[in-house]
Parts: sequence; C-alpha cells; structure tokens
Amino acid sequence: MTDPVLPSRLGVLAASGSIPIAVCDAAEAKGIEVFAVAIRGQADQEITRFPHRWVRLGEVGGLINALREAKCRDVVIVGALKRPDLWRVGMDFGFIWHLPTILSLTRGGDDTVLKRVVRFFEGQGFIVRGAHEIAPSLLAPNGACGALRPKEEHEADISRGLALLDALGPFDVGQSVVVARGQVLAIEAAEGTDEMLKRCAGLHQWGRRGRSGVLIKAPKAGQELRVDMPVIGPRTVEHAAAAGLAGIAVMSGQVMIADQAEAISLADHKEIFVAGIGRANSGGG
Amino acid sequence: MTDPVLPSRLGVLAASGSIPIAVCDAAEAKGIEVFAVAIRGQADQEITRFPHRWVRLGEVGGLINALREAKCRDVVIVGALKRPDLWRVGMDFGFIWHLPTILSLTRGGDDTVLKRVVRFFEGQGFIVRGAHEIAPSLLAPNGACGALRPKEEHEADISRGLALLDALGPFDVGQSVVVARGQVLAIEAAEGTDEMLKRCAGLHQWGRRGRSGVLIKAPKAGQELRVDMPVIGPRTVEHAAAAGLAGIAVMSGQVMIADQAEAISLADHKEIFVAGIGRANSGGG
Repeated sequence: MTDPVLPSRLGVLAASGSIPIAVCDAAEAKGIEVFAVAIRGQADQEITRFPHRWVRLGEVGGLINALREAKCRDVVIVGALKRPDLWRVGMDFGFIWHLPTILSLTRGGDDTVLKRVVRFFEGQGFIVRGAHEIAPSLLAPNGACGALRPKEEHEADISRGLALLDALGPFDVGQSVVVARGQVLAIEAAEGTDEMLKRCAGLHQWGRRGRSGVLIKAPKAGQELRVDMPVIGPRTVEHAAAAGLAGIAVMSGQVMIADQAEAISLADHKEIFVAGIGRANSGGG
Repeated sequence: MTDPVLPSRLGVLAASGSIPIAVCDAAEAKGIEVFAVAIRGQADQEITRFPHRWVRLGEVGGLINALREAKCRDVVIVGALKRPDLWRVGMDFGFIWHLPTILSLTRGGDDTVLKRVVRFFEGQGFIVRGAHEIAPSLLAPNGACGALRPKEEHEADISRGLALLDALGPFDVGQSVVVARGQVLAIEAAEGTDEMLKRCAGLHQWGRRGRSGVLIKAPKAGQELRVDMPVIGPRTVEHAAAAGLAGIAVMSGQVMIADQAEAISLADHKEIFVAGIGRANSGGG
C-alpha cells in the first residue's frame, strides 16, 4: 500500500550519519522497496540491514550502475559527506568519463556544487527526491521541541540571526550564526557548524553570566533542499551547550534533526532549548 | 612649528602593539608635545621613551586625571585591547563612579562599544582624534604595497569579499573575510582576524594547487575610525601565508598597516601580495 505520490522503489545513496538509515526505515514503513548504495568510508554499517551495495565515492560508473541494476529511478542522496582524500576515492572509468563535470563540481560555493550534483543525476535519468519527502518526521517542527522555550532576550537574538542569514544568502555561504545579547559572535562559512560552535566557547562577553546566546540555523534562500537540507543532531546540542549558549533555533520544516529523541533529551539534560521557528521571526537587521 | 590643525599637546592612551609608539613618534616629529597614558598589561614597554604614566585599565578616574594633569585636551586612543581579566583591571573610584556607563559599554557589537568610548571621553571634555590624523603614514596606500600585485582571479575574489563585507555592515560584525576562487571560506565575527586566518589553512578546496584566496579587510560603513580603524601587520601576513592565501587586500586610507616595512618585506618573502583597494573594487554580490 504505497503512497500514490511516492515511488514503489527507492535508491538511497548513503553518506555518513544516521539520516540515511532513518530514510531507509521510513521508506520501508511506507511499503517502498529500498536499495542502498553505501559509500565506503562514509555510510554507517547499519545500512547493511537493507539490500545494499558498497561503492567508493569515486566509482561514479559503479554507483550509477548499482542504482540502475536495482531498477531505482527515484533516488535520495543523503548523509553528511566527510571530505575524502582525493587519492583514496577509488575512481573508476565512470569517474574518468564524467571528469569534466566532476571537476566543475568542485568550484564555487557548496550550494552550487550540490545543485550540480542534482543536475548530474537528473541528466542520467534519475528523479532526485529529498530525504524529507520520504521521512518527513526528520524535519524540525514549529515551536519548542523540548522542555525549555526561548525567552524574550533569545527571540531578539533569533530575529537578528535570521536577518543576518538572509543578508548572507546571495553569497552562497554558511547556514548558521551565533548571536548573544544582540552581538554576532560567529558566522559559519566553510568550516561547518560544529567548528563554529567550538570557537564560541572562547568568545563569551565580559561580565556574562549563565547561558546566553543562540545558534540560529536555516537554509539559504534558493538552497537545494533535496540534497542539502541543514541538519542538527545530538552533537550540535553538545557543542552548543559547551559553548555556553542558551539554545538552538532552526527553521521549522527546513532543517532536519538527526536522532531527534536523543538530541532533545540531551538538550533537556543540558538545559538548553531547541526550537523550530518561522521566517516570521526574521527582522531587526 | 606645529601644523595649524594639529594640537600642541597630545595625550596618547596606549593599549598594546606598535601603533601607539608610532603615533607618539609621529606627533613628536610634528613638534607636538606627547604625554602617554600607558595601560598596564597592554602597552609596549617602548612607550616609556615618552613622558608617560602607567594606569590600569580599570583606573578610569586615574587615566582621566593623568590626561588632565598633563594638560591634554586632545587624545588619541590607540592600540589593540587584549581582553583583560575583569578581576585584575584595578578598578578605582572613577570606575565605580562611571560604572553604569562602563557596564552599558559591554553590550552590543564592538562598534557600538567603541562609539560609546568616544562619547564617554567627549563627555569628559576631551577631543578624540584618530591615530591616522597624527600619523597618516600608517594608512594603507592605494595599489600594491610590495613586489606582487593581485591577478584577475584575485580581483574577482576581492570584489566578492567587499560586497560581502558591505552586506554584513548593518550587523556590526567582523571587518574581514576570506574568499578563494569565488568561494567564501571564512567570515570574521567576534574571534578576530588572526583566529579566522588560522582556521583557513584547513579549509582548502579539493584539487587546489598553489596559493589561492584573498583576505579582504575593510571598515564597516559608519565604523568609528578614530578609535577603531582596522589594522593589519606582520602577524596578519604570517597567518595569511600559513593559510595558503595569495594575498591581502585592504581598504586604502581606511586600514592601518602596523610595522609597515616589516609587513611588506615579509609579504614579499612569503610571495603574497598586500594591496590597497577602493570601494570601486566592490560588486559581484
């Protein structure tokens, strides 16, 4: 009994983290037949619970063939891509064949690269679907997710952060910022959210008491959400707590929470809030 | 033989680095009588070449009295302020007296704080002058400063960086960004330029060869240049070279180069460019 808009078979091109597993589980729960193409050195071993084949990142020909042989027209490309050593990606003939495209992928901001990845797969005849189409429960809901909710001071930080992210939109750069009592402590560019949070611990203001400041994370306008939806998870909560922040605000419906139960229970334990917000919170540039 | 627009006596409130010394030297060369109020734990020992008094950062009453007793109506507030331990700043009665103002100074972005510092001194009857009014040779000139000049690829990075800095203006945040081959690698917020450069070494793109990327540094629109002009120096060159960048572009006439001869000769040695640019380079958001 498949959902009419969903495919009956689904290929899951799985990079690292728990989200590829969650997508496979959600697909099977919906009666979709899943075939995972697991990227070696990236995908979690748990992916082997599902029909799968391992490929190396450079086996572009191999992974396309794997998807075709499994008769998957619909594909989800999902999971964090740990930056590979270029000489250990195991290039195959398909890699060489597609080399001009692949080289062009490595230029420009992240968003551009991922849009090109989608175009590449579409050019090979696949339909690229977002992980959240298959597993909508991964999406951040609206409002407080755990026991704590943002206070008025945090709402002000959140709206300043959203306005800043909006201003950064045209530059195809980071998806998150940290704002504390009106001051922008950190802006994410190529280093990633975790690295950005790590440096915030040392950036507390003079005379600051207790937890303050909010991590604000949202996709850029025009970001390719099918393959590049922002994600938070337990590690994000851990880093935000270690940085002395009061909470995390993410765009509801446009940011995924990996290992949601664990992330929220950790946030409750650390006494920080995790809240889904809307663009209505924006303003105050 | 004093310049008619310059004062005959000048108080120099000296924090860390070589620029306070350069300002004192430039003032004396112009026939201005200098009195340095040197902040303990901050000012360079070389400041003792000039008539001076040491004060602790918290001795607000003491430093104001020192300036008044030395009959300095004109004051330059200059040098990098290393973040002090709040319990070791040596607060005096003047600190307590001005406490409400001082506490209000610690809120908001850097720019706001420094504008309030200027207002505070002006409120005490002083005329606050910029270091560059006394020592204009500290300012970055227009065009290449050393042996190398930016190539076309770098010009594109520079104009993208300037456009990004413009977009950040309303958020009272960082003065510098790193852009490499069109991609924004890092944006400075509260961590400072050196810390930002340090993380760039790990952010090289796949397949990158040789030096690429530019540090772009410029004041925000409306920044209080009298007390908060952006500065680069030999350490900036060192970090930019270590990060694999091709060069440094700063807004000419609005950014100071500390230890200019040393900075430029180091840049030549490391084979990176240091160039003064104008707002005309902006665009390409």
